[in-house]
Amino acid sequence: MMTRVLGMVWIRVWKDWDEKRREWLDLHGSFKSGLEERVLVVTGSQPGPCRNPIGDHLLLRFFKNKVDYCRIHGYDIFYNNVLLHPGMHSFWAKIPVVRAAMMAHPEAEWIWWVDSDAAFTDMDFKLPLQRYKNHNFVVHGWEKLIYEKKSWTSLNAGVFLIRNSQWALDFMDVWSGMGPQTPNYAKWGEILRETCKDKAFYDSDDQTGLVYLLLKENEKWGNKIYVEGEYYFEGYWLEIVETLDNITAKYNDIERGASRLRRRHGEKVSEGYSAMWGEYLKDAGYGKFSWRRPFVTHFTGCQPCSGQHNQMYSGTSCWDAMQKVLNFADNQVLRNYGYVHRDLLDSASVSQLPFDYPA
Amino acid sequence: MMTRVLGMVWIRVWKDWDEKRREWLDLHGSFKSGLEERVLVVTGSQPGPCRNPIGDHLLLRFFKNKVDYCRIHGYDIFYNNVLLHPGMHSFWAKIPVVRAAMMAHPEAEWIWWVDSDAAFTDMDFKLPLQRYKNHNFVVHGWEKLIYEKKSWTSLNAGVFLIRNSQWALDFMDVWSGMGPQTPNYAKWGEILRETCKDKAFYDSDDQTGLVYLLLKENEKWGNKIYVEGEYYFEGYWLEIVETLDNITAKYNDIERGASRLRRRHGEKVSEGYSAMWGEYLKDAGYGKFSWRRPFVTHFTGCQPCSGQHNQMYSGTSCWDAMQKVLNFADNQVLRNYGYVHRDLLDSASVSQLPFDYPA
Repeated sequence: MMTRVLGMVWIRVWKDWDEKRREWLDLHGSFKSGLEERVLVVTGSQPGPCRNPIGDHLLLRFFKNKVDYCRIHGYDIFYNNVLLHPGMHSFWAKIPVVRAAMMAHPEAEWIWWVDSDAAFTDMDFKLPLQRYKNHNFVVHGWEKLIYEKKSWTSLNAGVFLIRNSQWALDFMDVWSGMGPQTPNYAKWGEILRETCKDKAFYDSDDQTGLVYLLLKENEKWGNKIYVEGEYYFEGYWLEIVETLDNITAKYNDIERGASRLRRRHGEKVSEGYSAMWGEYLKDAGYGKFSWRRPFVTHFTGCQPCSGQHNQMYSGTSCWDAMQKVLNFADNQVLRNYGYVHRDLLDSASVSQLPFDYPA
Repeated sequence: MMTRVLGMVWIRVWKDWDEKRREWLDLHGSFKSGLEERVLVVTGSQPGPCRNPIGDHLLLRFFKNKVDYCRIHGYDIFYNNVLLHPGMHSFWAKIPVVRAAMMAHPEAEWIWWVDSDAAFTDMDFKLPLQRYKNHNFVVHGWEKLIYEKKSWTSLNAGVFLIRNSQWALDFMDVWSGMGPQTPNYAKWGEILRETCKDKAFYDSDDQTGLVYLLLKENEKWGNKIYVEGEYYFEGYWLEIVETLDNITAKYNDIERGASRLRRRHGEKVSEGYSAMWGEYLKDAGYGKFSWRRPFVTHFTGCQPCSGQHNQMYSGTSCWDAMQKVLNFADNQVLRNYGYVHRDLLDSASVSQLPFDYPA
């Protein structure tokens, strides 16, 4: 009965949202300027301590990384660590959080869910929102793998951008309808395994659910969903970690030749300095095989909190890679404070930077 | 030699800061409006995992609490978890962080250091900055205890507000001159124990150092230091925790009688709704014996990360009190998202709130 009652509340609240939001914006007109670019980052983790002894320390660092990115770009960020719907655990928990965030933040055009185990690794990069102006949902993936291979890893549901809209609420209602809070959960497990033959585990999950909706209800939802494959909207850590040393060297080389890039500056004007990089990065490409900093590095399969990482790699390789990635990101931040981690595997040590570094 | 070299860099960088900052503001004129109210919150913890198994989880929650407060009030927040000066460990570590933050944030008039084990427990309350307009440094304390008792606990150095200025840099140079990075550290330990007879431990510490400067160099620094004792600029958790249930009941009573206070609203307009509370709180008082929500609750002596808490109380009393305080604060935030912790000791469970709660 619990689920039904909660379900009713849910439906009662979330009707005519586009009109209600428009009314709110009319009442609070100061939020209309810049509306299309206004993003609220939402992330979170479970309410209790991690089982893995280093887990909460890593969650703290991942959160700091996101707060750094948001401060630099003027985004708000909300960290949730309560289960808003008692039945919607694990990866399903984010859906009620995103929904609640839409309501509490009518001024935000986009809610950007970012998993706790994903880190911003290019502090300069901004979402190309213009590209998504006709879409309501953005996810990282590859259309070929979705429509031809029907693979459950053809996209990644750990990072997504969703427009604050009635469309989003309707979509999340359908999407979450495959979740553990419904009586149809077991049946959805079967259907999803039937649809994506490579699905790795038994229970219905949000990611395969998304692939299912793209495959089976494409007419209803597909035209508003943008599958982003051109840059690391999120990227697989194993593909990224080994490239970070070369990327650092390449960026340092460029800076040695361009004094204006080396200028120490206030964090608040970082976006202006980032823009100067444009001409130097125009041949860098994006994503795999590029020497541009990867935008978001995602530790899919590492499970920093439970410690139940994918058996393909050892715990140590996950934790070391996380330190490396977090310090790579931190160096971009610390620089404006006058410091650098010389060794990306040494989180504790920093050196003070001379003013014209790295000339 | 390390310390000397670092010391030289330090001095070279930090001259004529008021002029440099003014030049920066002239170049970036958009930051001049609202300058006096612009605050950067700075906090942080050590680079590695906590020794106490629940420590990092608590640090994560304390950080979330601060990010919530900053989001609601439009403040930036910087979390530091590296030791910027290898010699300045423990409580001394914050001084180089605050200094670096001033430089990276010339647009911020105030840097507000808040210890990792302090939580905002009144999400509505704002610093009365107008009161500090002729001062450069604000700390919680009691003048009587400073000047008559010469007690090392006559003030608390875990939370302070410092004006982004050359005064602040000069003051921090003198203050940090008692720290572990200097050859005079042992001598300062003796001097501080001599000055504050009740000092609980041997080594020179920043808090007793501050009392020393107020007592011995008052003519040089005292007129710019504001000792705030009127409200919980920070408050001792043991004094606060037992009052939270009554405070909750009192606020709920007021809301039952005033429908405009109950109105669910977007988080971005929270400050407007907080202002409505003014008339209902005018008899509440501030600080001890008040039924107003305490502004900042500080877990002095609890040591959430090392677990080496004051032997006066058990670990459990610290951790339970932290959960209670953090959930008390979280309820003020979650409310706009439509949820509440019914039981302040149960961090995992929330209920959905009806729209006119608590009518």
